[in-house]
Amino acid sequence: MARRFRDRFRRRGGRGASSLVVRGNRGVDELVSDILTRHDSTTRRELAAVVADEYLAADDEARRAFLDKLARKFWTSREDVDTAAKQLASAGDDLTARTAAEQQLRAALTPPATELLHIFTGLDDGVKLLVDLRADLLRLADDDPALRALDAELQAHLATLFDVGLLELRQITWDSPASLLERLIEYEAVHAIDSWADLKNRLDSDRRCYAFFHPAMPSEPLVFVEIALTAGVATELQSLLDESAPDLDPERADTAVFYSISSCQPGLAGVNLGTALIKEVVERLRRDLSNVRTFVTLSPIPGFRPWVDEQLRTGQLSDRERDLLPAEPARVLARLDDADWGADESIGPALTALCARFLTTSLGGRALDPVANFHLSNGAALDRVTWGADSSPTGRARSVGLMANYLYEPNRIAERAEAYAKHGTITTSDVVKDLLA
Amino acid sequence: MARRFRDRFRRRGGRGASSLVVRGNRGVDELVSDILTRHDSTTRRELAAVVADEYLAADDEARRAFLDKLARKFWTSREDVDTAAKQLASAGDDLTARTAAEQQLRAALTPPATELLHIFTGLDDGVKLLVDLRADLLRLADDDPALRALDAELQAHLATLFDVGLLELRQITWDSPASLLERLIEYEAVHAIDSWADLKNRLDSDRRCYAFFHPAMPSEPLVFVEIALTAGVATELQSLLDESAPDLDPERADTAVFYSISSCQPGLAGVNLGTALIKEVVERLRRDLSNVRTFVTLSPIPGFRPWVDEQLRTGQLSDRERDLLPAEPARVLARLDDADWGADESIGPALTALCARFLTTSLGGRALDPVANFHLSNGAALDRVTWGADSSPTGRARSVGLMANYLYEPNRIAERAEAYAKHGTITTSDVVKDLLA
Amino acid sequence: MARRFRDRFRRRGGRGASSLVVRGNRGVDELVSDILTRHDSTTRRELAAVVADEYLAADDEARRAFLDKLARKFWTSREDVDTAAKQLASAGDDLTARTAAEQQLRAALTPPATELLHIFTGLDDGVKLLVDLRADLLRLADDDPALRALDAELQAHLATLFDVGLLELRQITWDSPASLLERLIEYEAVHAIDSWADLKNRLDSDRRCYAFFHPAMPSEPLVFVEIALTAGVATELQSLLDESAPDLDPERADTAVFYSISSCQPGLAGVNLGTALIKEVVERLRRDLSNVRTFVTLSPIPGFRPWVDEQLRTGQLSDRERDLLPAEPARVLARLDDADWGADESIGPALTALCARFLTTSLGGRALDPVANFHLSNGAALDRVTWGADSSPTGRARSVGLMANYLYEPNRIAERAEAYAKHGTITTSDVVKDLLA
Amino acid sequence: MARRFRDRFRRRGGRGASSLVVRGNRGVDELVSDILTRHDSTTRRELAAVVADEYLAADDEARRAFLDKLARKFWTSREDVDTAAKQLASAGDDLTARTAAEQQLRAALTPPATELLHIFTGLDDGVKLLVDLRADLLRLADDDPALRALDAELQAHLATLFDVGLLELRQITWDSPASLLERLIEYEAVHAIDSWADLKNRLDSDRRCYAFFHPAMPSEPLVFVEIALTAGVATELQSLLDESAPDLDPERADTAVFYSISSCQPGLAGVNLGTALIKEVVERLRRDLSNVRTFVTLSPIPGFRPWVDEQLRTGQLSDRERDLLPAEPARVLARLDDADWGADESIGPALTALCARFLTTSLGGRALDPVANFHLSNGAALDRVTWGADSSPTGRARSVGLMANYLYEPNRIAERAEAYAKHGTITTSDVVKDLLA
Repeated sequence: MARRFRDRFRRRGGRGASSLVVRGNRGVDELVSDILTRHDSTTRRELAAVVADEYLAADDEARRAFLDKLARKFWTSREDVDTAAKQLASAGDDLTARTAAEQQLRAALTPPATELLHIFTGLDDGVKLLVDLRADLLRLADDDPALRALDAELQAHLATLFDVGLLELRQITWDSPASLLERLIEYEAVHAIDSWADLKNRLDSDRRCYAFFHPAMPSEPLVFVEIALTAGVATELQSLLDESAPDLDPERADTAVFYSISSCQPGLAGVNLGTALIKEVVERLRRDLSNVRTFVTLSPIPGFRPWVDEQLRTGQLSDRERDLLPAEPARVLARLDDADWGADESIGPALTALCARFLTTSLGGRALDPVANFHLSNGAALDRVTWGADSSPTGRARSVGLMANYLYEPNRIAERAEAYAKHGTITTSDVVKDLLA
Repeated sequence: MARRFRDRFRRRGGRGASSLVVRGNRGVDELVSDILTRHDSTTRRELAAVVADEYLAADDEARRAFLDKLARKFWTSREDVDTAAKQLASAGDDLTARTAAEQQLRAALTPPATELLHIFTGLDDGVKLLVDLRADLLRLADDDPALRALDAELQAHLATLFDVGLLELRQITWDSPASLLERLIEYEAVHAIDSWADLKNRLDSDRRCYAFFHPAMPSEPLVFVEIALTAGVATELQSLLDESAPDLDPERADTAVFYSISSCQPGLAGVNLGTALIKEVVERLRRDLSNVRTFVTLSPIPGFRPWVDEQLRTGQLSDRERDLLPAEPARVLARLDDADWGADESIGPALTALCARFLTTSLGGRALDPVANFHLSNGAALDRVTWGADSSPTGRARSVGLMANYLYEPNRIAERAEAYAKHGTITTSDVVKDLLA
Repeated sequence: MARRFRDRFRRRGGRGASSLVVRGNRGVDELVSDILTRHDSTTRRELAAVVADEYLAADDEARRAFLDKLARKFWTSREDVDTAAKQLASAGDDLTARTAAEQQLRAALTPPATELLHIFTGLDDGVKLLVDLRADLLRLADDDPALRALDAELQAHLATLFDVGLLELRQITWDSPASLLERLIEYEAVHAIDSWADLKNRLDSDRRCYAFFHPAMPSEPLVFVEIALTAGVATELQSLLDESAPDLDPERADTAVFYSISSCQPGLAGVNLGTALIKEVVERLRRDLSNVRTFVTLSPIPGFRPWVDEQLRTGQLSDRERDLLPAEPARVLARLDDADWGADESIGPALTALCARFLTTSLGGRALDPVANFHLSNGAALDRVTWGADSSPTGRARSVGLMANYLYEPNRIAERAEAYAKHGTITTSDVVKDLLA
Repeated sequence: MARRFRDRFRRRGGRGASSLVVRGNRGVDELVSDILTRHDSTTRRELAAVVADEYLAADDEARRAFLDKLARKFWTSREDVDTAAKQLASAGDDLTARTAAEQQLRAALTPPATELLHIFTGLDDGVKLLVDLRADLLRLADDDPALRALDAELQAHLATLFDVGLLELRQITWDSPASLLERLIEYEAVHAIDSWADLKNRLDSDRRCYAFFHPAMPSEPLVFVEIALTAGVATELQSLLDESAPDLDPERADTAVFYSISSCQPGLAGVNLGTALIKEVVERLRRDLSNVRTFVTLSPIPGFRPWVDEQLRTGQLSDRERDLLPAEPARVLARLDDADWGADESIGPALTALCARFLTTSLGGRALDPVANFHLSNGAALDRVTWGADSSPTGRARSVGLMANYLYEPNRIAERAEAYAKHGTITTSDVVKDLLA
């Protein structure tokens, strides 16, 4: 078995606790019980390193069993909670007594498993361990309520550890470590990077790439964004990814196009880092490139295809959409998968109009499309919807080749974010308004 | 008014939220209310930056008023807590329902002020702000139960942020930035650093100095330790601080004497960083200096003087101690402040024996002397007690010039720490045992 | 025209000199004349930046014309030299007079072109310019004696600038900048790197790669060496380059095999950096990997094929070599190019013996094979000659697939280097002696 | 004896050569002879390390003896020079033959000692050794022509090594290493730094400090400049050095006053680094502080006092100067040393006028005052001469308290430098012209 955490522990912490570990055939859960009753912090960390190593050496079944133990055996005690709740009920109006009773009840409601998560944090590479543990949890939890409660606990802890104020924004260039660039190739989620040559093109002089890093996992990007500097707003993808296209002199660019944003750590799902990344990068570019004044995304529309299929199938079309369609809805639907026909200009106007409607439709205050919801929450406006913008198989499969631009206007971001959050208001450009007319 | 946080915010985050801040003559508390109802995280941070700047510009009275608001107006709602407690009581045995009810009750027990603390964390320099805020709180709280509850909340948050796994251990040398060394001069708490020449002597080739740093406040040491490399155990202080003493070749040293450990951030009181610092430094030295095999402190005994005064005044002396005294207890007590007489060898044996008793006396499982309690908790053994070890006025005032050595034996640390924590067991050397006989 | 040097000059030096540059249609040589009569060093550098930019923008013909001007128009003045020689002849015995006359004659013998080379050095990126200028010179000089004299001048200047004491040794790993690794792929001269995966294999945990850098061209490797850590001496290449081979735990390696050493800058031909690189890397590995005790190369034998062809053609074979041959020399020669037959084991013993003779044959105190001469000059011993060691087309073409190991024994290097330099002594292992018997 | 160089050599180069060093009672010069006949570069460097260590361990007498050997025993051979000169005379017109003969003569004129200097360069810390060797040479050479020839050789080698293009410009701040700041205190040559508090004042937010460094001696500043950012031109010193003066907001400064420039390495005398330092710093400040548009020095006038004494003594005064004097020249002269009287306003106008005349007087194309000559050579103009500008004892002793401002106008620097170099033209402001009227 690998002894990664124990070996690192040796290098950083004290020695000698291992003599205390007489594992015999005790289960890992007995080891955890032992840890939680120890007083010496070094011993606790050393034993936690043993648990970490065993966890990493285990297969999925054993990992799920361990997580299950954490979520059930090391969870709140119903008895303790009830006792503390009664004490609070009888605490009366005295501030001191009531404060103490509240603290006690909150302590009873904090599961012992949380303490183990905190001890893990103190190990070398412990933060990465927590992130990976949560990735396992999300993968293995199914709908088990105990595991989901453990997940909520872990997510809250990670949200504190990964507070934006603790992260470091770094520019990534062709001078960055190859080991880091290799990770970008691996993690790129929106438009796959084919080769080192493709990557190099994305790091050319007219490109920018930025990522957030956490000081406790300095070689692991958390989320990164790819940007093209252009003259005018780029509305379609292929020219941006064309390796043979000449570079634009950055001093002649007036627009920054955020064409890909990818999360690298599945274990940080639900910890929103993308919003802060976009906003910090916009500020960075404003400061560094005084001539760039327009900040816009070029974004996929992952929810469009199932939605438009449904509209065509059921015929839920406006009169104008119906007029724009070059054939019966059912026929259009039937041939949409046909590559040649799918790129046909004749269906462009109708699908663009449908897409504009899709992107401005909300349900319960949230835009139907998750990417739209992300950017609108951030305070962006829907600027353009473009037919034939992504002719890759993926692009055609998810949105019939359509893509959207969202516009970030620094001075309007705050009010738009607030309006969308409170009233579901979706700001659109005049171009989009025309599509909707 | 300085606008430190707002200006930094500009550089890192978005812009435009300031237009939302129509302060008029609203109090800071209204601003906090506003923040907590906002949805856009950037707006929240920008408004929090305004609060931070106002706080830093305020005097103590206004600061206490702000803290008081946090601790009362932005605290748990009795009504919400009671409602949630009732729901839990009626949740029954269903795991899903009970889990949800527990989470809701815990949320109700988490004060809104905590959310503001989390938002502060996300500001540039926000971590330092939290540390300074807590230093104020400790200074201004008196015995107010609400402020003490706020302090408990803040301490818990800082304990997570300052987890040892997130800290960086750095060696400090004469090549370190002058601005950092200046801080050591300011923060040294045990044996004051008189001048840059004194400091340079403490960073000579036969010295080592290490400190912990937090990545979000990289130029602020948190706690630092000063070490002398010696041939044999140094039992008295003056020779270590003698600037004219020749340097020992580090390759000929067999002992590392930890003669000073100082905390730099009052706001981190109760967040124990010293223990981890000593243990990591011991490991570092073991690895780097293969000939150094003894790790020992040379420590002050701050609690001795009041205790021994009391013993002499009330005559609570063992027969042996009484025999060793060169005069009546009352007379010894009367003359202890006399510098000349106080250094008199004739009273050394008796006071050394008394000191050994003092250092090995516990109350409620804790050694009476706080420094002794710290090292014994860490797993050290009491190794020596030396008369005339610190002849400075401070040294004489706090412990009649006596000092103690605590021995850290890497392979025994864990078990001794556990034995002291569980049973109050204080391990002593034979030399100390003889003093107690 | 690119204005690289001028733009950089602006950033570093003063401004305003450009107003002095009224080029009109003066040739670059007039500009050089102008520079050499100027007094202000900033003006001189600014004008030199103009020359540098024009040079870089020129084609080969124009470059050669410029170099020709340097080597003829800005060369020593015969009149000045003769005058100074006469003055020296008449200086007599007075030390002061003679010293002055010698200095004056030496000054007259130093061509003005040298001064321009010194001014180039002071430009940003000027060192790289000199290196590239010399690469052009070597490529374009043919046998022109004036250009060769200019080359000698430039080489002497570069030898001073690239003194080993001024270079920085850096380890190259998979964490190095991609832009740097890309250069390794480009520069590898011995065994071509096929792909990024091939390169990553060469930077695995059981590999080491080191390069020299000059502080004035920090992102340009000068010469690099690739090393495999092995258990026992590796005598053949393919297993080292096998990407699918498992990594050896470096703690279990006892041998470091230097299997490729490549110069990156053609303009530094004749400035020997390889020797120092090997010796420094041997010391570095001795210090860092205490278990590695054998340092050996796995080297190509580029001169073998033409030599052995000649031996076989003319029948200059020893009796033993003739006995070992499986067929008539002429027949062996005729079929050596046949890939299948060339790998035939039957001819191995004879060709191995011939190769051992080739590698130990000197002419004028130098081994015939240039690689052998390099390692023997450095103080290495010829350790092994292996049949079938490099089955690549290149390997077969240059040495019928044979490779050699040269052994660097740290404590014997100095005396062997001296013996080889003075007496042409070639030290060989017993294995090689047997081949020669 | 310290073995600094040998120990470092071990770490970097090979081992084993020491066995070759059978010093016995051979002199160091025999060791040098040995080095120059060796072939293996590693052995040469190792032996040179022995020489370096012996040199550094020697006293001044032994050092001078060693330098004397270098300058006499390892100097050019009269016989070789004469032979080569004859060969050149008989080379005729053939380019190849003549080029070869010239190269041979130049080689004969290059002393063997030069080769040793080159080998020293290759040692770790060898560049610093050369610099220190030259400092010794300048100190010990007296008027010995052989030693002065050695010095010329060494200076030429250092001028190549310390070419401005190879140096690194670094800003020095209060965050710089204490060990570096300590050196500034030591090296400040113009206005002594009294204490760390004085130094901290000189590194405040309204100050700037820059130095040149050589990559082979990275912790040794070569030359540094101290600058105050001011609103308007500062004409007197004391307010700049007043530690209690409030800092100016750098954004409100319009002028950069270069009030001290100090060389740190006596061994680099004659290698002009100050000019490039001033010019690069002016460019740096222009770029970083867009509001600073005036670049001016506040400079001492070290040659004034002896000159004005002479004028007063001999009565070489213009009518106007005589009119301005409040008393007879001899009487003024007699009382100039009297501190109280020396500061008397009544003599200010006369001495200021005399000083203006002094600063604009040249001899052989060079201004009489060395500081004036330096700045005028760089292309500066004499802007002001101020009475009472430096009231320190040093200031009064060297220039009766007068100081000068020299103005660097980026767009005029080149032409003024050229005009001063060619025609001795000294540009002055109208204010200075009035003083001269």
